Amino acid sequence: MNHNIYEIETTGTLMKQGYVSLKESQSVEQAISHLRNQVQGKKNIHYVYIVNTSKQLTGVLSIRELLEAPNMSKLSNVMKRDLIYFPSDLDQEEAAKIFRDKDLVSIPVVNSDKELLGIVHVEDIIDVIHQEADEDIGMITASGKEIDFNTSPIIAAGKRLPWLILLLFIGLISGGIIERFEETLEKVVALAFFMPMIAGMTGNTGTQSLAVIVRGLVSEKLNLKKATKLLWRELLVGVIIGLTCAVIIAIVAYVWRGSSMLGFVVGISLLATLIIGTLAGTVIPLILYKCKADPAVASGPLITTINDILSLLIYFGIATMFISKIV
Amino acid sequence: MNHNIYEIETTGTLMKQGYVSLKESQSVEQAISHLRNQVQGKKNIHYVYIVNTSKQLTGVLSIRELLEAPNMSKLSNVMKRDLIYFPSDLDQEEAAKIFRDKDLVSIPVVNSDKELLGIVHVEDIIDVIHQEADEDIGMITASGKEIDFNTSPIIAAGKRLPWLILLLFIGLISGGIIERFEETLEKVVALAFFMPMIAGMTGNTGTQSLAVIVRGLVSEKLNLKKATKLLWRELLVGVIIGLTCAVIIAIVAYVWRGSSMLGFVVGISLLATLIIGTLAGTVIPLILYKCKADPAVASGPLITTINDILSLLIYFGIATMFISKIV
Repeated sequence: MNHNIYEIETTGTLMKQGYVSLKESQSVEQAISHLRNQVQGKKNIHYVYIVNTSKQLTGVLSIRELLEAPNMSKLSNVMKRDLIYFPSDLDQEEAAKIFRDKDLVSIPVVNSDKELLGIVHVEDIIDVIHQEADEDIGMITASGKEIDFNTSPIIAAGKRLPWLILLLFIGLISGGIIERFEETLEKVVALAFFMPMIAGMTGNTGTQSLAVIVRGLVSEKLNLKKATKLLWRELLVGVIIGLTCAVIIAIVAYVWRGSSMLGFVVGISLLATLIIGTLAGTVIPLILYKCKADPAVASGPLITTINDILSLLIYFGIATMFISKIV
Repeated sequence: MNHNIYEIETTGTLMKQGYVSLKESQSVEQAISHLRNQVQGKKNIHYVYIVNTSKQLTGVLSIRELLEAPNMSKLSNVMKRDLIYFPSDLDQEEAAKIFRDKDLVSIPVVNSDKELLGIVHVEDIIDVIHQEADEDIGMITASGKEIDFNTSPIIAAGKRLPWLILLLFIGLISGGIIERFEETLEKVVALAFFMPMIAGMTGNTGTQSLAVIVRGLVSEKLNLKKATKLLWRELLVGVIIGLTCAVIIAIVAYVWRGSSMLGFVVGISLLATLIIGTLAGTVIPLILYKCKADPAVASGPLITTINDILSLLIYFGIATMFISKIV
């Protein structure tokens, strides 16, 4: 019923009516008696909210705490005053973070005058958390939102196709790069053997970095300091991963093709592409986050495709530099 | 404190003490008075649980419902008897599904004699849902569990490396395939131009199917009928996506290289690989689910790498069949 007034995916649309509010001046006994008459048919009542004479929210008591309190006490003397409340325009994901931190089953929503508007229940937050995880996964895999087991094939294909067609054309750039290095490739066809592995590995490391960032943003806000630290971390991860994989592949390439120079080219290329792949998987989503752009643009397949292109450029670039020594 | 007795990630380890249990024979007035004395210091009390003389759980009342009930009624006459309870060995993810469906803030755990053992709170379920989503994403991207913004580079690299090294060696299979088709490739170097695009697109469609299945399993159980329906759906999706992309790429290949036969080979290959890629992304996680194997084995990068290999086999296989007509 709030859908007309409040932005979607905010506390305003998430909140429910059907709360119990009491006055500061009431006694515990009056409150309990009032509650026994007022709660008929209302579901999910676990707290009572207490307002002052200006109707501003000033305190809260769980029904349990209300029962615990001495009969004759005024609510203003027993209520908890340091209560948590939401504005009506808070993003539902931010609300979910606060629910997680605070272990509450409901949190009130107030307007700018601190008047009570409604209550957000933890049951609805559970749905928000699910929805958010689905969105993250839809984004990492570019599989489209809201596809479940019952979606029709045409709708499911329709949601995935726009992305795939875009990726198809971006993927053709890699074809153009290989064409540019056609001469190199014709001289050393063995370079083609390592092409899918280098492109694949670069894509994998990029997706891994992306996943860490997307999930990290669920629980933490990023500031410049954290982002810088994260970039350094992923750079170091890229170097460690790159060095390890480069040494392995250089040995394999040497043993397989009997050319130490081919081993060197493949190894150096993999080192460079894995570092760059890791950084691309970190930097692209961070920039989008910073620009408040729709982060769905930073999908895993997009990063994979960009990394494909970067890896081919690096691989054939290095190979062309050393071509005279490989042949 | 339950960690020694119960399996990890079950309702037994998730449940908390600190519930209120009352006897069927008590009156509402007695219950409220009892509650006011008993609840001191207990947190998260939103329901009272009612047991019979054999200490078996027989009913439940929210504190709100207790307050609503007439003072003199016996609890056995006002309590809700169709209550939801968990065994102590239920997987925490199953418990989370039931919380989602039932909109409750706590659910009791009982032993085989239906005696009350503890209470699972929705706050802990929220953490379970987050953990579950993180595991799903870790699985889809093979990025390893429990990497956050503060994980050290060495630990983060260490968690990703085993997967990457495995994928590196699997990726070398694709090198072996290209080597087998070296002759074909030497005759038509232009085949290499479309290699990364075909492998990439096949990987993308596989990851999309995987994501749908992994997330679907969060909310639904799969039976044979559903799995069959899902397989048909993804097959149809593969055909629709494959036909669309195949027509586009055939035109592009023809325009770019001026060879209608190259366009035909690339288009037919893409059609075949996208159908197979979609099916691999569906069948592999379904089989692992059926075998109750650790589904982390069906990670996105693994499916991508397998799809790389399949797509190269199909592409070069088809190209070799038509080689005399392309040149």
